[in-house]
Formats: sequence, structure tokens, C-alpha cells
Amino acid sequence: MSDRKNRPSEFDLIEKLFVPLAKSHAGAAALKDDCATLIVSSGYEALYSMDTLVAGVHFFETDPADLIAKKLLRVSLSDLAASGGVAKGYLLALSLPVDISYEWLQLFVGGLSEDQSKYNIVLLGGDTTTTAGPLTLSLTAIGEIPIGAVVRRSGATTGDDIYVTGTIGDAALALRLFDELGREETQTNYPALCDRFVLPRPRTRLGPLLVGLASACIDISDGLHADLGHICGASGVGASVLQAEIPVSSVAADILRDRNHFWQAIIGGGDDYELLFTVAPENSEKVQRIGREAGVSITRIGSIVPESGVSILDFNGKPLAIENVGWQHF
Amino acid sequence: MSDRKNRPSEFDLIEKLFVPLAKSHAGAAALKDDCATLIVSSGYEALYSMDTLVAGVHFFETDPADLIAKKLLRVSLSDLAASGGVAKGYLLALSLPVDISYEWLQLFVGGLSEDQSKYNIVLLGGDTTTTAGPLTLSLTAIGEIPIGAVVRRSGATTGDDIYVTGTIGDAALALRLFDELGREETQTNYPALCDRFVLPRPRTRLGPLLVGLASACIDISDGLHADLGHICGASGVGASVLQAEIPVSSVAADILRDRNHFWQAIIGGGDDYELLFTVAPENSEKVQRIGREAGVSITRIGSIVPESGVSILDFNGKPLAIENVGWQHF
Repeated sequence: MSDRKNRPSEFDLIEKLFVPLAKSHAGAAALKDDCATLIVSSGYEALYSMDTLVAGVHFFETDPADLIAKKLLRVSLSDLAASGGVAKGYLLALSLPVDISYEWLQLFVGGLSEDQSKYNIVLLGGDTTTTAGPLTLSLTAIGEIPIGAVVRRSGATTGDDIYVTGTIGDAALALRLFDELGREETQTNYPALCDRFVLPRPRTRLGPLLVGLASACIDISDGLHADLGHICGASGVGASVLQAEIPVSSVAADILRDRNHFWQAIIGGGDDYELLFTVAPENSEKVQRIGREAGVSITRIGSIVPESGVSILDFNGKPLAIENVGWQHF
Repeated sequence: MSDRKNRPSEFDLIEKLFVPLAKSHAGAAALKDDCATLIVSSGYEALYSMDTLVAGVHFFETDPADLIAKKLLRVSLSDLAASGGVAKGYLLALSLPVDISYEWLQLFVGGLSEDQSKYNIVLLGGDTTTTAGPLTLSLTAIGEIPIGAVVRRSGATTGDDIYVTGTIGDAALALRLFDELGREETQTNYPALCDRFVLPRPRTRLGPLLVGLASACIDISDGLHADLGHICGASGVGASVLQAEIPVSSVAADILRDRNHFWQAIIGGGDDYELLFTVAPENSEKVQRIGREAGVSITRIGSIVPESGVSILDFNGKPLAIENVGWQHF
């Protein structure tokens, strides 16, 4: 056992680190039982999203453990938000390499704890196991939504306006700059972009306000072009988007001024975790109202059209060729 | 991509193999959306269990893929049963090595499909990712139970009878015989024991019948001694068990006749997935009635006592020393 001396026992791990994350919810039974229970509100149904992050595939092993924890949680919270749901809790399965340290796990749990408060959720249960491979983290996020109200990708119809929240492409731009400048220089010169890459900000307040208003919604994880393609494919329609209307951050705008080719990263890159949704044109005022209510900027970028495919018209009104068709994490 | 030529694309994997497992449930949205939905019956609450199996830790890489799939599903169904719940569906996260073949995945999905029919459950959603490490499978089982009716480990009280379903120790005996005889000879000579090791048979019919009857319940995964210790610890009581009353299979009884030391595997070994539960003595007739109803043999093996600890009295009425305190999968 000498090669594991810094490794906590399973008992220590659960009792000292994870039980405090579950103690506010009686149905978690202090992580000491076979199952967790959760009551779904009357008139609501349960909503589920499960995601796995693998070291070396979805995050850098050297990323701070608290940020990895938050990213893990937030990608699933983003899925619940895109469906119009309110998050309630989560289950967590950790496959830990033998050389993982107690300090790393403390930091990881600290990140979960902060986000539990931020998003008003609780740890319900899970599993811990050892692995000879890379650190592997699976999370099941559990939410609820009024019965039958789930917002799907498949409801967009011709004439609907297309909207996005926040700004698009910051995370993808950070990744491109890592290649060009190195990670350290990018972090020093463009901390805001790096933040967007490391730490998604799921639109958990806005999501539930889209129920009964948005005809379709998705969170942008594969890239604006690819995820709009997902809505179009599922809905049997197409999309026409104006490049000039795509909202970018001021930092991104500065970079794009000199380096026009980075627009490919903005449109083709992933990991924005902004919401992309469609709404009938007569409801445009309601869209701005819920944006104000949720404290999120919402921008109309185009329209749903009958012809299949996603067409983006550039600043000269010509169709833009897209090089990158979205992330392939698989 | 040449090193992956036998590897299916993520699209093929989901569309051809996994979508058929989800198609009967509208809330799974054919695995094409961000979230799955599930309605919990009125007056019921949701019940969750999450488990991870890692190749080389929880199963042999050479085990048939359909049996791995069934084991993955059944260990979680066993947890739901031990809590008194009825299974409804599951979410599945696969982290796949790059060299995994389409044929392997077909067989794996075939196993899931058979068990979906057997246990009346459906695939709700999940995630697929790649890993540089061993095949890693995480499953979240979702069930329901009348609100407030969950059977916990913590309800045993002094004087309660202690019961187990089926026979104890077959899986652990198989594992001991692998060491002694080799896997092939054990398979040839003791196929029934090997079956118990490879394929749990969760007591899904009996579990829900324990609601309102059992004061505490657990499924035996760490071993009879360890899991009874978990009930006693959670309930603040102790247990007195008679070795002579522990039900063993006829194959196990034959082996134990010559090799008394294998009793340590029977009592200390894990992976039985039988239910171990406690019931007030006045309800002993009800216990036998639900056993007949579920088609499961139920055997009384001892009593809950006020003194802490698990004491097993041997055939001569003397306390039995336990070498193995249960599995450590961590």
C-alpha cells in the first residue's frame, strides 16, 4: 500500500469529503444507503442528463481540481437549462487513479460545494472506484419541469427567430490561442477568454423561463454552427444567420479585427454553454423581458427557413464557408 | 483513423445500437436531446442508484460483453430492490477504449436489450466518450417507491428476525475455486457457481414487497458478515447468526463437506446480490407469504441483539472468527 500512502481510504473519502455535500437532503441518507430518494413536485416530471469527463480528453490533468468539479457539474446543469428544467441534485461516480491525492480531492469537493450553493443543488449519491486509467468523472444531473413542458430541439418552425444568450466563441478562441501563443501567454493576455474555456456559465435562470415560449432550444457545446444544425435536423427545417448579428465579447472583437480567420473558431468551435433557441416572431418582446428577468443578454441572429441546412451570411451578404463542423469529443 | 477502423462512429453507435433501447419511451427523445424526462407516479418519489464498473477491477476484460452489460444493470437493480423500489429506467455512460470493436458493442447492447425485457425497464439517456484507459461503465438506475416508504439500513431493532433470500456464498466460492483450480476447470466442474459470480440475480420482485414489512434491508454485495455489519452499524444494534441456518446451495454444500475452510468465503465473500433484511418476529408468516408471492426462498438466520457487532455461532455454538471482512472494490 506504500504507493498509495497519500490516497484516502474510501471511508475517509466519503465520510469526510462527500457526506457534507449531501447532509442537507434527508433522501441522500448521508450516502450510507443503497439508494437516494427525491420527491418530484406535484404536476412536474423528472428531468435527467448524464455526462462523463475523462482526463486528457475533456480537461487537462493540470487544470485546478475545483474548476474540473465545476465544469463537470455545469455542463449537465446547462443541459437541464436547455430543456427548460430546474436543477435539484446530482449523482456522482468517480473512477480515481491510485496516485490521486487527498489534497486534490479536497479541492475538487470544494468546487462542488461552492457550486451547490450557487445553483441550489445537493449531492444525492454516487459511487467511487479505482481505475488503472485516467481520472474519469460521471455525473447525473436531476431536475424537474412541469409535465409535458420540456423544450426540445425538434420544435423550430419556418419564420421563427433564432436567438443566442451572451457572447459566442470565447472558449473556442481561447483554445485557438493556446495553439498560437501557448497556454501561459494566453492566460496572461486573455484571462476572460480562458475563463470561458475552463468554466462554463450555464444559463440556469433563463432556461426555465423559455418553457411555453421557445419552440426549440439547445445549449451550445459543439459550436454555434453544429448546434444550430442539430436544431434544424431535429425540426426538419433550415436556418439563415447573419454573421454581423452574432454577439462576440469585446475581447474577441479586438482579436477578430486583426485576425478575420478566427471567425471560424467563433462559429465552428464549441464549449460556449450559451443557449441557442427559436421563438415565434410575435413573441420577440417576451424574449427581451425574460432576458432582463434572468439578467442575460439575448441577441437575435437570424431566422428559421424551410430549406434544410445552416447558412451564415458574411458581412458582404455572401454565404460563409465553415471549416470546422463542431467538436468531436468521442 | 486506421487504428480505429473497427470502431463505430459515435453516430453509428448511438443510432444503430442504443436508440432501439430507448425507442419505447417518448421521454428519451430517441437519445437526440439534452435531457430525458420521466413521470413519477402520483404519491411516489424517485429512487436512484449509481454504479461504475471498471475493466480489470470489477470484471475480467475477457468476460462476454452481454454478461458485463447485465451485471452492470443488475447491480443497480439490486440496490433499488433493497430499498423497496420498482425500477423504471436507466442512464448509461460509456468510456470506451479506442480499440473496442463494433461486435463487442453489439453483444453488450444485446445483453442490455434482454435485461430491459426481463426487468421491464428502458434506456433513458446517457453519454459516450473515449478513454485512454480501461473500459469504464457508469449506470444510473431510476426507480420509484411510495413517498416515505423507502427501506433503509438503519431501521433494525432488538428482537427483529434476520432473513436472507436464496443461497449465500456461491459467487465467492467460485472466486476461491478460480484461485485453486483455475477458471476453466471451475467453469467445467461448477458452472452453477460461476453463473452466480458472473451474473447477479437481483431480487426485484421481492424488494417492493418488503415495503412496510422489513425494518431494514441491504443487498449482499460486500459479503454476509460485512453487509449485516452495515445494517447493525446504521441501526445501532448487533446481530447473532447461526452458521447452521445460513442457506447454501447443494453444490456449495458438497464442497464445504470436504473443505470446511471455504466457509470463510461463504460468510466473508461478496457478490451474492441476495437481500438481507430484518423483520419484527410477529410478522414471520407474512415473510414466508411474500417469499411465495415472489417465488424466492427466504431463510431466517438469526436475530438482532442489543450488543453491537455481528456474532456468528458455529455448528458447536462457539463464535466463529471471520478472516475476510468483505470485498474492497475501491
